[in-house]
Amino acid sequence: MEQNLPGGYNGRILRVNLTDGKVTTEQINASFCRKYLGGAGFIAYYLLREVKPGIDPLGPENKLIFASGPLTGITLGGCARHTVGAKSPLTGGIAKSEVGEFWGAQFKRAGFDALIIEGRADKPVYLWIHNGEAEIKDAAHLWGLNTKETQETIRSELADASIRAAMIGPGGENMVKYACLMHGPFDAAGRGGMGAVMGSKNLKAVAVRGDNMPPAADNDGVKKMVDWLKENKELYKPFSDYGTGSPMARFEELGNLPIRNFRDGAFPGVAKINAITLKETISVGMDGCFACPVRCKKMVACEEPYQVDRAYGGPEYETIGALGSACGVDDLNAIAKGSELCNAYSLDTISAGLSIAFAMECFENGFLTSSNTGGIDLKFGNAAAMLKMIELIARREGIGDLLAEGSARIAEKIGHGSEAFAVQVKKQEFPMHEPRLSKSLGLGYMVNPHGADHMDSLIDIFYCDMTEQPNVVVADALPLGFEPAPYADIGPRKVALFKVLQTKRFIADALVLCHFLPYSYTQYAELTAAVTGWDTSVMEQYRTAERILTMCRLFNVREGFSAEDDRLPARFFQPTRDGALSNTSLDDEEMEKAKHYYYHLMGWDDTGKPMPEKLEELGIDHLAAK
Amino acid sequence: MEQNLPGGYNGRILRVNLTDGKVTTEQINASFCRKYLGGAGFIAYYLLREVKPGIDPLGPENKLIFASGPLTGITLGGCARHTVGAKSPLTGGIAKSEVGEFWGAQFKRAGFDALIIEGRADKPVYLWIHNGEAEIKDAAHLWGLNTKETQETIRSELADASIRAAMIGPGGENMVKYACLMHGPFDAAGRGGMGAVMGSKNLKAVAVRGDNMPPAADNDGVKKMVDWLKENKELYKPFSDYGTGSPMARFEELGNLPIRNFRDGAFPGVAKINAITLKETISVGMDGCFACPVRCKKMVACEEPYQVDRAYGGPEYETIGALGSACGVDDLNAIAKGSELCNAYSLDTISAGLSIAFAMECFENGFLTSSNTGGIDLKFGNAAAMLKMIELIARREGIGDLLAEGSARIAEKIGHGSEAFAVQVKKQEFPMHEPRLSKSLGLGYMVNPHGADHMDSLIDIFYCDMTEQPNVVVADALPLGFEPAPYADIGPRKVALFKVLQTKRFIADALVLCHFLPYSYTQYAELTAAVTGWDTSVMEQYRTAERILTMCRLFNVREGFSAEDDRLPARFFQPTRDGALSNTSLDDEEMEKAKHYYYHLMGWDDTGKPMPEKLEELGIDHLAAK
Repeated sequence: MEQNLPGGYNGRILRVNLTDGKVTTEQINASFCRKYLGGAGFIAYYLLREVKPGIDPLGPENKLIFASGPLTGITLGGCARHTVGAKSPLTGGIAKSEVGEFWGAQFKRAGFDALIIEGRADKPVYLWIHNGEAEIKDAAHLWGLNTKETQETIRSELADASIRAAMIGPGGENMVKYACLMHGPFDAAGRGGMGAVMGSKNLKAVAVRGDNMPPAADNDGVKKMVDWLKENKELYKPFSDYGTGSPMARFEELGNLPIRNFRDGAFPGVAKINAITLKETISVGMDGCFACPVRCKKMVACEEPYQVDRAYGGPEYETIGALGSACGVDDLNAIAKGSELCNAYSLDTISAGLSIAFAMECFENGFLTSSNTGGIDLKFGNAAAMLKMIELIARREGIGDLLAEGSARIAEKIGHGSEAFAVQVKKQEFPMHEPRLSKSLGLGYMVNPHGADHMDSLIDIFYCDMTEQPNVVVADALPLGFEPAPYADIGPRKVALFKVLQTKRFIADALVLCHFLPYSYTQYAELTAAVTGWDTSVMEQYRTAERILTMCRLFNVREGFSAEDDRLPARFFQPTRDGALSNTSLDDEEMEKAKHYYYHLMGWDDTGKPMPEKLEELGIDHLAAK
Repeated sequence: MEQNLPGGYNGRILRVNLTDGKVTTEQINASFCRKYLGGAGFIAYYLLREVKPGIDPLGPENKLIFASGPLTGITLGGCARHTVGAKSPLTGGIAKSEVGEFWGAQFKRAGFDALIIEGRADKPVYLWIHNGEAEIKDAAHLWGLNTKETQETIRSELADASIRAAMIGPGGENMVKYACLMHGPFDAAGRGGMGAVMGSKNLKAVAVRGDNMPPAADNDGVKKMVDWLKENKELYKPFSDYGTGSPMARFEELGNLPIRNFRDGAFPGVAKINAITLKETISVGMDGCFACPVRCKKMVACEEPYQVDRAYGGPEYETIGALGSACGVDDLNAIAKGSELCNAYSLDTISAGLSIAFAMECFENGFLTSSNTGGIDLKFGNAAAMLKMIELIARREGIGDLLAEGSARIAEKIGHGSEAFAVQVKKQEFPMHEPRLSKSLGLGYMVNPHGADHMDSLIDIFYCDMTEQPNVVVADALPLGFEPAPYADIGPRKVALFKVLQTKRFIADALVLCHFLPYSYTQYAELTAAVTGWDTSVMEQYRTAERILTMCRLFNVREGFSAEDDRLPARFFQPTRDGALSNTSLDDEEMEKAKHYYYHLMGWDDTGKPMPEKLEELGIDHLAAK
């Protein structure tokens, strides 16, 4: 290990080749750590360096990367996270997905900063990483199991109840394009099909356990932040009380809630499914990630008509939206069951929900019929049909085999102009926030390297007075000279604000820090300094995030993506069908202008390609295609 | 005054029309203060709003603006400064010049944030500002006096020895294009000809006195910074010990010292004139600005051959270079005398020195002869001739009338291709740092809105190991991921670094904070927050500086400036004549590429004109020409 390796890093990358069973470790040095930080930065770096353009994302040439950040495993709220990345089987571009739980902290304690999985095992295996060691183990007996049973079996056979497993259920095994990667039974690295990549490698799980706490350069500095969080509970109280989704009724009223595949604007049933109602009915308490005082994870249990296993946690807002209002379903018990099934099978609830919602709209339009669905009445609002689809998708049975491909590919197959209402960008389905309401959110969906994604795009949605939740975004925006402006046009000021706030999200994704913690830019830098010992600054982190965003862009450009792929589907240039909120449709020309100004601010040319000067400026010209 | 006016502001602008004698006050509100901050920001705002394009800078339509910042007058090192601005008679573009001393603190205590002087008095007057009042007073008896006598007379007739005066001597009265504005007898708002503008208005002085300390929102926060300065004396010790100019010998060795109008590269006489030698010979101590622990102002006295009045202070590095090595003069006593004369007459030592140096080179080339000079042997190294020229310039007598126009206009008159060695950008003479050594400094000279200027361009000169002084710039640059790289080419990374550091300078110029104090970006924001009570941030201040730089650009574009005006003279694309440091000549194409990438980063088009989107982004589209 390098002499001057900063606090927060182990300085070691674990590389596992499943084809030949080779396990190696590599050292990383301080300048590498400082330049790419971790998480999204490490993933973009290794994918650019090591994954050839044009490869099959579900072939052995793809690499599945788990990356922690310098803060991962520090005993402080928001520092439980790590990132999983690969070339996405859903989008064909770069993908990364963050997840909390305890896996990242255990992985860090096991002595590594990142894990690169290469090749493909010839039979099911799992990986066991513990205190500097890694073993490839047989997983024949695990194949086919749901996630809960998978982790239980591994814990039992390794005789260690503290093991944490990242794993797939049948959805990942069957390479559903949007299969997620579960961590424990209720935390998902949800988006981009990371579970499908794992399945394609015949890898069932990555189990971790470690005993060596990552060091911090300045424990007092960390302690100061712990105290600050304790003293500012009101900044995250709504998350502690309800988890995500408490302001859903207000969302519906203002037009932020996706209703029937984003077709409609009114959904009175929202009162029956939001997080406040959930708390009053099926909640059995809250859970949380390592060291986090927020504890935003809902736990639920119900018996009928659907029995829901509390081990799988409760539905997040995204899940309630995707399996609920987006499918026209207002049955909270069914939604909780759908959440349980997706977690058990390792399916991304967002893409699963919207693929089903899209199929429902096709069914209502007559583009799909009972003969396609095997007799299921796949109309909006049919909760049982929604649940049945999840089963079929996970096993790729019947129509499930088509729905497992995601809405863009379903639309390609179905035709009839259905692309116009396949609610996706870069083939990834939308999260549960309406771009017709928030144009910068729309811009975020357009330009996000991972396709439509709420983790790095959810910017000025909070400007609207729709939420009582702590307004972190407004707190960030006001010092920048931006006033809250709900429903406002997206001129250059909003584009610039979007860029600054998107950049902040990518700082968090490199550190890897939870977006729900109410830290400011300055606190990001302070916390990084406390852990690593670097004399870092807001300006440095801003540049690092620009670097990582541009690296992601480079990857996509290499795969053939262009400005044409940064577009919203036709649906959003029309008002909602039921006329609710009809004044909110987007203007294509306005969004295109915004996109091109964003390119300018990023140092990308009019085709969205990073300028050579920008690559040189950011010190990543060597990562561009030759 | 507005209810929520932040700490550090009085909320009042004093407007004095000298044509009709009208004195008015105007209120400014919190959002204005936050958007433009003060100093350079206020000046750019009022000049854009109120000064019509194409007006004569020495006519009554020009406005002379004194602007403090939110920190001015706070009892903390670096907070003594204010800014003076106008349309420049030297460049024809925007000008602003900062100055320390005690004037700004007194002005602030008098109850104002800025002073706008309009029109022209029909006879000499001075302005007396005290505790919220302002009077225009007769100055017939002051006209023709040197600066020291001017302040003494005013203090005496107003019976207040604490009065501070901003004033001109004969240089300003005679509208020497680069007449400065003296504050007390030894602090100058030096550049851009602010003294000529004051002279053109028949205004001899602005005398101020006040009793109301400006408030700070968080006195503990300010105190914290006072203590930090006390505990970190080593960061400014060389300035405290020697003032500016202690590393001059090293400058000469490495090629940073201008020698004989930037023509040559070797000057052994540097040993006789640098600040260390000065301290050992003619120094009689150090002085300083209001509340500043640095105390970097040299005090000197000598008797022969030239008697130097200690009241006028000693020469700064810029003065030693301009009147010394740039004129080939290695006589410290003569340089000190030249400094005294310039301060007495209100001449910018930099432009005066380089205008004389240029004339010397013309004389040596035979473009000027004894018949032009009235028999004076105007060759390099002639100290007596240098002093005589200062006298002639101030009074516009003989060849002094030509030299009072500055080197660009002298070259226009003389011809013979002398433009190539008129060392100026936008008709303003170079400060005493060599762009052949530091390419980002060269870029700074090119794009600075005020013409060649060291206050906002002196960026990576400190990368070189030429100085033992605290390396604030390196401390700023390292967290940005830039390594020190003396003599390096100027690729996109250095352009980006230049932009970030130039922006920091403009944050300081808006606050108005001294560049010599070793504060970081973060401390700028913390200090601003402590004084104003705003929850401000590095990112906000970065944007504010971008706004102000772009406003300056707007002013110049309106006056007809274009990318062609952002060029260095031909001299710098050749090596030095004496062959010393001959490997350091600049490459025109490289500098042009750097310039255009800088434009891109600023959001300016290829002609250097701010893009409409950028203006909208920064919220200053209303300030652009219709």
